[in-house]
Amino acid sequence: MSHVLILGGDGYLGWPTAMHFSARGYKVTVVDNYFRRHICDKLDVGMLYPIPTLVERARIWHKQTGYEIQVIIGDLIDPELMRSLFTGQNLNYQWPVNAKFAGSPETVVHYAEQPSAPYSLMNYKTANFTLSNNLLVTNNLMFAVKDLSPDTHIIKLGTMGEYGTPNIDIEEGWIDIKHKGREDRFLFPRQAGSIYHTSKIMDTDLMWFGCRTWGLKVTDLMQGPVYGMETSESIIDDRLKTIFNYDELFGTVINRFIVQAIVGHPLTVYGKGEQIRGYINIRDTLQCVHAAEKNPPKSGELNIYNQIMETFTVNQLAALIQEAAHNIGHNVEIEKVKNPRIEKEEHYYNPNYQGLINLGITPHYLTIDSVQKMIETVFKYREYIDTNVIRIGIQW
Amino acid sequence: MSHVLILGGDGYLGWPTAMHFSARGYKVTVVDNYFRRHICDKLDVGMLYPIPTLVERARIWHKQTGYEIQVIIGDLIDPELMRSLFTGQNLNYQWPVNAKFAGSPETVVHYAEQPSAPYSLMNYKTANFTLSNNLLVTNNLMFAVKDLSPDTHIIKLGTMGEYGTPNIDIEEGWIDIKHKGREDRFLFPRQAGSIYHTSKIMDTDLMWFGCRTWGLKVTDLMQGPVYGMETSESIIDDRLKTIFNYDELFGTVINRFIVQAIVGHPLTVYGKGEQIRGYINIRDTLQCVHAAEKNPPKSGELNIYNQIMETFTVNQLAALIQEAAHNIGHNVEIEKVKNPRIEKEEHYYNPNYQGLINLGITPHYLTIDSVQKMIETVFKYREYIDTNVIRIGIQW
Repeated sequence: MSHVLILGGDGYLGWPTAMHFSARGYKVTVVDNYFRRHICDKLDVGMLYPIPTLVERARIWHKQTGYEIQVIIGDLIDPELMRSLFTGQNLNYQWPVNAKFAGSPETVVHYAEQPSAPYSLMNYKTANFTLSNNLLVTNNLMFAVKDLSPDTHIIKLGTMGEYGTPNIDIEEGWIDIKHKGREDRFLFPRQAGSIYHTSKIMDTDLMWFGCRTWGLKVTDLMQGPVYGMETSESIIDDRLKTIFNYDELFGTVINRFIVQAIVGHPLTVYGKGEQIRGYINIRDTLQCVHAAEKNPPKSGELNIYNQIMETFTVNQLAALIQEAAHNIGHNVEIEKVKNPRIEKEEHYYNPNYQGLINLGITPHYLTIDSVQKMIETVFKYREYIDTNVIRIGIQW
Repeated sequence: MSHVLILGGDGYLGWPTAMHFSARGYKVTVVDNYFRRHICDKLDVGMLYPIPTLVERARIWHKQTGYEIQVIIGDLIDPELMRSLFTGQNLNYQWPVNAKFAGSPETVVHYAEQPSAPYSLMNYKTANFTLSNNLLVTNNLMFAVKDLSPDTHIIKLGTMGEYGTPNIDIEEGWIDIKHKGREDRFLFPRQAGSIYHTSKIMDTDLMWFGCRTWGLKVTDLMQGPVYGMETSESIIDDRLKTIFNYDELFGTVINRFIVQAIVGHPLTVYGKGEQIRGYINIRDTLQCVHAAEKNPPKSGELNIYNQIMETFTVNQLAALIQEAAHNIGHNVEIEKVKNPRIEKEEHYYNPNYQGLINLGITPHYLTIDSVQKMIETVFKYREYIDTNVIRIGIQW
């Protein structure tokens, strides 16, 4: 069976992706340096509930299903570690004991990046960390595949945030530009709202260089904010549930509103609230990554998909969560607060996102029902909520 | 008088730029980590003639003209060093002894990058170095200016190589795109031919983020390959002449052809030789940087100029240098060799470069006469030429 290597396998998406492929018979290896855990500890912006280590999760998964997910703990900014994942040389597995190299992976899912826009803008040090981590891990991966395993398909997470909020329709990665009577095809123009999002523009540029220069095969999934905690695999054992962050650094707006609804704090809308973004359920992320794995590009091609299933304004999200909360007995207000971010609060937004639908994805939508379920899940952990972390005051 | 800070002040352009501003009464501070010298030593791809250290050059300059160029030796990948250039705190001057902080600079000229495309593609380590050096120095500069001196004008060197060779006319940095009945203005689409050139796309994206988010003032000079050694200041003393590299890493095509003509080696044209690029004389680079200094953008604006004065195919350059060499008694052949690079060898190329001309630059063109003068200058050092470094075999 095919071997899938997941970089950043301890993260919000990494662990559910590992279980998803493992449950379907793939050989799965995960690598992580625990950055997310360490930074949450260091800045005291805890996750809602404690999460077993990656090794413990692999052990629980094995016990419950019989499947083996191989675990390596290390920092992929080290090019030698990255290269060893393709050769098996000097590879230290944390789990299982006496693991054998599963061979050079047919597919790499690259999540090993610093994913927080506010973190990237705390100060020059976190900005530098974001740029160097995200660029160097991606470059290490690109060179390892070029040098050691050129047929490997790289699935890289991008973000819809790379496009920003242009005044023209957003296409899926590419645009044909007519100019003074001539024409050419280019990457869709991108200008992002944070250093993190800018680092993702750079990643895409780097991978596109690798595709057209060395014939690499890359899929770039331009994802919107993901919501949801449960997947088909996590429901087997409560300890397999993925991370839930609701703090200003790693929590996205839907998580923040859900936690605010539970503690009875007004849902805080930044600025006018007419900022539109595309959103996706975590179950659909797994469907999309799997569909990408089954449809690798040809050598030299960069396939780009816009990985969202629907769009909402912040005001619409607030209204939806207010209503869902009300239905199950939590009455909350909506409060407009000064926007800590530099962004357009009213803008045109019309992204195309048919590519993944055409590959057969069946979307889960954000409905009153699905929000109610999320509120009910989070409500179980209401005693753990630390309201101080919802707003720690990062501005840009 | 205004204070100009030159990052990468020991380089091919850095030192002539320092003398240019110093001779015109500006306070000038230069910073360098001697990367270019060290890497030329390490890889044994020497410069044509020895160059005094930056401190020695500042001393000679002072002795000959009375002007003082302050020298700091250090690595700007260290954010604390970068920040100290704007505060004066803990700043260690190499020269002059007992130097006093000249105040936060009104203008920064940022040359402190790894500028070689072949070096960036030697292997994964040099690629990583190029990305981290170029991105982190730029980011350190951006944050230092934002945090400590927001009115400072940043003049950053870009490269025409960022645009690649698109099938549409190349505008000066920006393009209005009409798409499905709507319109917006974007950075001109860029896709470059090396990791180095890709790092420059990233720099531009980073600085544009800083402009629109924090109101920085940035000029980006998209320069073509520069040729020439002598400037109005260097002719005062032979030891003030800038670096001449003719090796595969740091020498550009014009330097290589001149050295080949002198040693009687055929001028080696890569592939079909119909690759077109824009070129500029080093004297014009100085004019352009000075014009940019006198015309700072408004807060929040990124001014982009295409810094070339004419375009040539490689075949045209070879023919020009062959003729000039012939006129002064060096008969050389032209030889087409297999192209070690991945690039289009026949392509459309029509860049716009009127912006700097409109600011009053008087171009120096590459003529038979000017090539003859360069051949005569290099001929003086013919005993120093090491023909082994012209082709060391880097491929991508």
